[in-house]
Amino acid sequence: MTKEDVTMMILSAKKQAGMTWEEIAEKIDMSPVWTHSACMGMNGFPKDKAEALATALALPQEAVSVLEEPPTKVWEQSVPTDPCIYRFYEIVGVYGPTLKALIEEKFGTGIMSAIDFDMQVHKVENPKGDRVKIEMSGKFLAYNNW
Amino acid sequence: MTKEDVTMMILSAKKQAGMTWEEIAEKIDMSPVWTHSACMGMNGFPKDKAEALATALALPQEAVSVLEEPPTKVWEQSVPTDPCIYRFYEIVGVYGPTLKALIEEKFGTGIMSAIDFDMQVHKVENPKGDRVKIEMSGKFLAYNNW
Amino acid sequence: MTKEDVTMMILSAKKQAGMTWEEIAEKIDMSPVWTHSACMGMNGFPKDKAEALATALALPQEAVSVLEEPPTKVWEQSVPTDPCIYRFYEIVGVYGPTLKALIEEKFGTGIMSAIDFDMQVHKVENPKGDRVKIEMSGKFLAYNNW
Amino acid sequence: MTKEDVTMMILSAKKQAGMTWEEIAEKIDMSPVWTHSACMGMNGFPKDKAEALATALALPQEAVSVLEEPPTKVWEQSVPTDPCIYRFYEIVGVYGPTLKALIEEKFGTGIMSAIDFDMQVHKVENPKGDRVKIEMSGKFLAYNNW
Amino acid sequence: MTKEDVTMMILSAKKQAGMTWEEIAEKIDMSPVWTHSACMGMNGFPKDKAEALATALALPQEAVSVLEEPPTKVWEQSVPTDPCIYRFYEIVGVYGPTLKALIEEKFGTGIMSAIDFDMQVHKVENPKGDRVKIEMSGKFLAYNNW
Amino acid sequence: MTKEDVTMMILSAKKQAGMTWEEIAEKIDMSPVWTHSACMGMNGFPKDKAEALATALALPQEAVSVLEEPPTKVWEQSVPTDPCIYRFYEIVGVYGPTLKALIEEKFGTGIMSAIDFDMQVHKVENPKGDRVKIEMSGKFLAYNNW
Amino acid sequence: MTKEDVTMMILSAKKQAGMTWEEIAEKIDMSPVWTHSACMGMNGFPKDKAEALATALALPQEAVSVLEEPPTKVWEQSVPTDPCIYRFYEIVGVYGPTLKALIEEKFGTGIMSAIDFDMQVHKVENPKGDRVKIEMSGKFLAYNNW
Amino acid sequence: MTKEDVTMMILSAKKQAGMTWEEIAEKIDMSPVWTHSACMGMNGFPKDKAEALATALALPQEAVSVLEEPPTKVWEQSVPTDPCIYRFYEIVGVYGPTLKALIEEKFGTGIMSAIDFDMQVHKVENPKGDRVKIEMSGKFLAYNNW
Amino acid sequence: MTKEDVTMMILSAKKQAGMTWEEIAEKIDMSPVWTHSACMGMNGFPKDKAEALATALALPQEAVSVLEEPPTKVWEQSVPTDPCIYRFYEIVGVYGPTLKALIEEKFGTGIMSAIDFDMQVHKVENPKGDRVKIEMSGKFLAYNNW
Amino acid sequence: MTKEDVTMMILSAKKQAGMTWEEIAEKIDMSPVWTHSACMGMNGFPKDKAEALATALALPQEAVSVLEEPPTKVWEQSVPTDPCIYRFYEIVGVYGPTLKALIEEKFGTGIMSAIDFDMQVHKVENPKGDRVKIEMSGKFLAYNNW
Repeated sequence: MTKEDVTMMILSAKKQAGMTWEEIAEKIDMSPVWTHSACMGMNGFPKDKAEALATALALPQEAVSVLEEPPTKVWEQSVPTDPCIYRFYEIVGVYGPTLKALIEEKFGTGIMSAIDFDMQVHKVENPKGDRVKIEMSGKFLAYNNW
Repeated sequence: MTKEDVTMMILSAKKQAGMTWEEIAEKIDMSPVWTHSACMGMNGFPKDKAEALATALALPQEAVSVLEEPPTKVWEQSVPTDPCIYRFYEIVGVYGPTLKALIEEKFGTGIMSAIDFDMQVHKVENPKGDRVKIEMSGKFLAYNNW
Repeated sequence: MTKEDVTMMILSAKKQAGMTWEEIAEKIDMSPVWTHSACMGMNGFPKDKAEALATALALPQEAVSVLEEPPTKVWEQSVPTDPCIYRFYEIVGVYGPTLKALIEEKFGTGIMSAIDFDMQVHKVENPKGDRVKIEMSGKFLAYNNW
Repeated sequence: MTKEDVTMMILSAKKQAGMTWEEIAEKIDMSPVWTHSACMGMNGFPKDKAEALATALALPQEAVSVLEEPPTKVWEQSVPTDPCIYRFYEIVGVYGPTLKALIEEKFGTGIMSAIDFDMQVHKVENPKGDRVKIEMSGKFLAYNNW
Repeated sequence: MTKEDVTMMILSAKKQAGMTWEEIAEKIDMSPVWTHSACMGMNGFPKDKAEALATALALPQEAVSVLEEPPTKVWEQSVPTDPCIYRFYEIVGVYGPTLKALIEEKFGTGIMSAIDFDMQVHKVENPKGDRVKIEMSGKFLAYNNW
Repeated sequence: MTKEDVTMMILSAKKQAGMTWEEIAEKIDMSPVWTHSACMGMNGFPKDKAEALATALALPQEAVSVLEEPPTKVWEQSVPTDPCIYRFYEIVGVYGPTLKALIEEKFGTGIMSAIDFDMQVHKVENPKGDRVKIEMSGKFLAYNNW
Repeated sequence: MTKEDVTMMILSAKKQAGMTWEEIAEKIDMSPVWTHSACMGMNGFPKDKAEALATALALPQEAVSVLEEPPTKVWEQSVPTDPCIYRFYEIVGVYGPTLKALIEEKFGTGIMSAIDFDMQVHKVENPKGDRVKIEMSGKFLAYNNW
Repeated sequence: MTKEDVTMMILSAKKQAGMTWEEIAEKIDMSPVWTHSACMGMNGFPKDKAEALATALALPQEAVSVLEEPPTKVWEQSVPTDPCIYRFYEIVGVYGPTLKALIEEKFGTGIMSAIDFDMQVHKVENPKGDRVKIEMSGKFLAYNNW
Repeated sequence: MTKEDVTMMILSAKKQAGMTWEEIAEKIDMSPVWTHSACMGMNGFPKDKAEALATALALPQEAVSVLEEPPTKVWEQSVPTDPCIYRFYEIVGVYGPTLKALIEEKFGTGIMSAIDFDMQVHKVENPKGDRVKIEMSGKFLAYNNW
Repeated sequence: MTKEDVTMMILSAKKQAGMTWEEIAEKIDMSPVWTHSACMGMNGFPKDKAEALATALALPQEAVSVLEEPPTKVWEQSVPTDPCIYRFYEIVGVYGPTLKALIEEKFGTGIMSAIDFDMQVHKVENPKGDRVKIEMSGKFLAYNNW
């Protein structure tokens, strides 16, 4: 049983149960972003969260240890074509040097960690058209000099 | 005089004046993200903001019309190697399908606009290590059916 | 049942019924361009249109919810080799900067949306050789300054 | 004197004269799309049009023969990053197979020529947001069988 | 039944019958180049030629309509490694600009069509070593100015 | 003085003299294809032909030895975008396997040489539209078995 | 039965018989380099050699005609990662221009044929460490001038 | 003074002196392959050989230390287009797995070194056409197990 | 039975036995790095080590000879996306020229062998956060001059 | 004055002074790896180290602030061809999955930081041939779950 197998089981159970990702996230008391990503096999579950998910979606016991395995994070190496995903690459492409300049201005030489990291997605209602709001937070890591 | 020429003038004036991007942004009453990006030639200035910048940094009059020109947004087509910028591609690569799934769950079929869009960068102090906080907001655009 | 499965069912039903894409489009009261594209899995159906299609082509009930799912729009990242498709890339490659210059001249800094968008294909008879006429229309989106 | 040199002269003369591409196109009695594209060196001028342009913008006599030279149409081989141009690749990528299917349905096996071809850009005012309208027309070419 | 299926049937029937491509071409009264290419699925058959081929090779009736379908011409986007095919890319790579210069010198600004096109392959005996002779002919297409 | 320098001299002398490539080819009693290609630096001149060219175009004496140097044949490794050149890649891409199959059928296992090779370009007048005719001839080379 | 099928049969028969490539080569009286390469489907067998191989390894009769078919030589288009193969690309990459310069110095303008070609691999014992010795020989081909 | 500068000096001195690479190699008592490659900056000279070369070609004293510097061996990462060099990639591409199989059969698991390596080029006269003979020799390196 | 098959058997046996790579490495008296890599099929086993592994994990006898076969080391040719592996490419990318400069300074012109090579991974406890320590050692190889 | 300018000054001063990287590193009391890398512009200097370097190599005062600027770490995105650097990519390519497996086995799910990181290069004398020893150490970073 691989992570791909377990992802298929989750998607099937989710469809049958008619649950949203937010509802599943609530059941295991984690954020929707992390929950979806870990269900896709892009993050590893802590043991208690893996058990909570297995209970919530009636997954077989063997799935628990698979959910706990460290992920191998493989993502598209060329820029993806789906418009919803592409726009985020466009943002990072256009504003990447700006993010670097402002982080260095505020923190000194270093980077924002993508490992000690979290993210949230919100819907903000607006009479001119609702807006997607995304918040990211990552630990600042200073370069070592030795 | 091209946008590149004006960017060079801005960087040189900024260094001489010892100003930060935040200070320049305040002078023209715009956000630091937009200000840096537009100074790099990746966004076009409204006329009044171009004039305010020219005044703040003592740029020549001709620079104003160049700052107003629409940008040609050229960014690296392969994933950049600088660690500070790369980590953002890693985030978008790993979490892109998650962002798509959650946006569709909350809004229906469509995308977050990268055109009607804004972004902020904050420093959040934390005893375990300060954190970089990034907030993005973009208008939701539903696909047209015809 | 995936979108690919439903596309196969549609193609098979279409062949058996001897219908053209225009006839199918008429049956569901949508344009031929949108209808073909959505049948290929590149657009999501509104519920009533999915039901109309299922009725017109005698698709199983389960197909309706699959047709409604948001699409993941994956297209060839390198320039395609089929001559009929290639010529459109040649047009966009040669005239892309021209389209940008004229849109900016007419509308200001911004883009034509590919989301709030529609397209039509017509045959124009001509004694020197019939002509293909294509009309596209997309909402103008101005860049946000913040 | 190369086509690039002449393009630079045209851009400089246009800026000084404060003319738009539409006004230049009118002066030489051609469409704005063709005029911009030929001024960028992507199409060759007929002799009378080259002379008309030289007169309108006070270009040196030598420029006339350069404008008449056949172009070498070099365009970006990877998908461009500028959002205004990228959206056209997204349209062609998503709808390319649809255009092929509908052309074949209407005309038989063959292609739309990108050589015997013309295009127009219009602004369509709309209370929900103005729209960009693009019309292309190309001769249908049937494959030869021998 | 797809074009690939029919190609497999043709290759199998050809092997069993011990026929060459030239013999098959004669049977359907078309050129060997076009015949091979259409049997590989790279050109669509006119109805009478599809029927003649089905008769000559005892293909099932359903194959006829498949042979008539418009082809999707997918070819290797990187330069192929097989020496016999590679040498043609080498010729086109080395002499491409020469062909362009001489076509423009003889015909004016435009191209040789690859759609209204035919090609023949001959064996020319020669005491110093036999030679392969290839003849191509394509309609000249002048660029449209509008 | 490099081959590029000499190419520039040739192009300049050709323009000043108002000669075509065919006229230059006649002056040195070689074919137009070879002449253009060698003037572009893609073939090396035999000594007498180099001298004839230098005389015909009044090139400096030093150019003769440069024209005799073996060429380094560098051509675009990705498929070129100019429509006139692209169409030849389309032909070789679509018909490459056909050429291989027919050469092997006529000659046995081997290739057509691109080294012991010649090519001609002709204009064939035709009331339905003039045609470009191209003839290539290369020595057949059988694979060695050892 | 394809060339890949026959390669699998050969590898299996070789393993069962415990024969080396040198021993197989001896059985059919050809060199080990050619024998291995032809068994991998990268060269076509003359009829008598195909029969000798079939006898030596007890291959089915049908394999003989497959071994005789002309090969389609497909090799990795990017530089391979296996260290033993990579080192040969390193040699050709570093010394390619040197080989060209020395061949042109010794023979005039032209190339070494890779078709009329043979190669041998030897083991040379040496107290400081045994050495691999490789000998290649190819016919010199002069460029044609026409 | 860089390695590129010294290469230019060598080429110029060689042309003026009318020497071949073989003659230069003899003067410094090294092989022609190594001599050309080191003169191109792809190998570093031992001190005495650098001095011998400087004497033979009347290079300035400063060139000696530049010739001694370790090289940075940068070669074309895509397969080169020049036919004379390409053929060697074709050989390595087609026969790479064969070389690996025979080296492992003769020596055990390991590789032929491209560092402790030498190569020679010879002309072998032959009434059917002269042949290029290339001999390579590299130390066998066994993989370490630890 | 291929190397991939044996890797699958090993992973399955390891999971069932609940052993770590370090424990397996101890059983066969080799390092964990080499053991994991050889179990993945990236190194060949000496006979006694293959037998020890088969005993330790109860692999079938046939697996022993497969473990002994020379590996074909195929690794990702583009930079991998998994963050744990990517960071090593980042290190080699940033510090590659530094390693070259310091090796040449200490040893002369040459390289560190990746064949006569070993590596160890250690955990170093640290109150500010544990550290990963990696030690590599490779034989210095001097370039041959001939 | 850019980082590239300062790198050129350092290389020139180092050559004139006849100093090694180890001697320069000692002067500023940092490691040779960090020192070389920072002099190449791949790391930013702390103020006191920048001043020490300027003193040791007699750099102009303006260089100090340039050395302090955060670096933009641009490295070759394709695998480099220089053999000394390539071997490190080969190691990381072959052993990358092994490093990931052992780090996860020892530390849990996470990565070795390339930011809080240091590296040393040593020469280890050995009668069978001296060895290059490289030690890397990076902080372990566990993935965040939220």
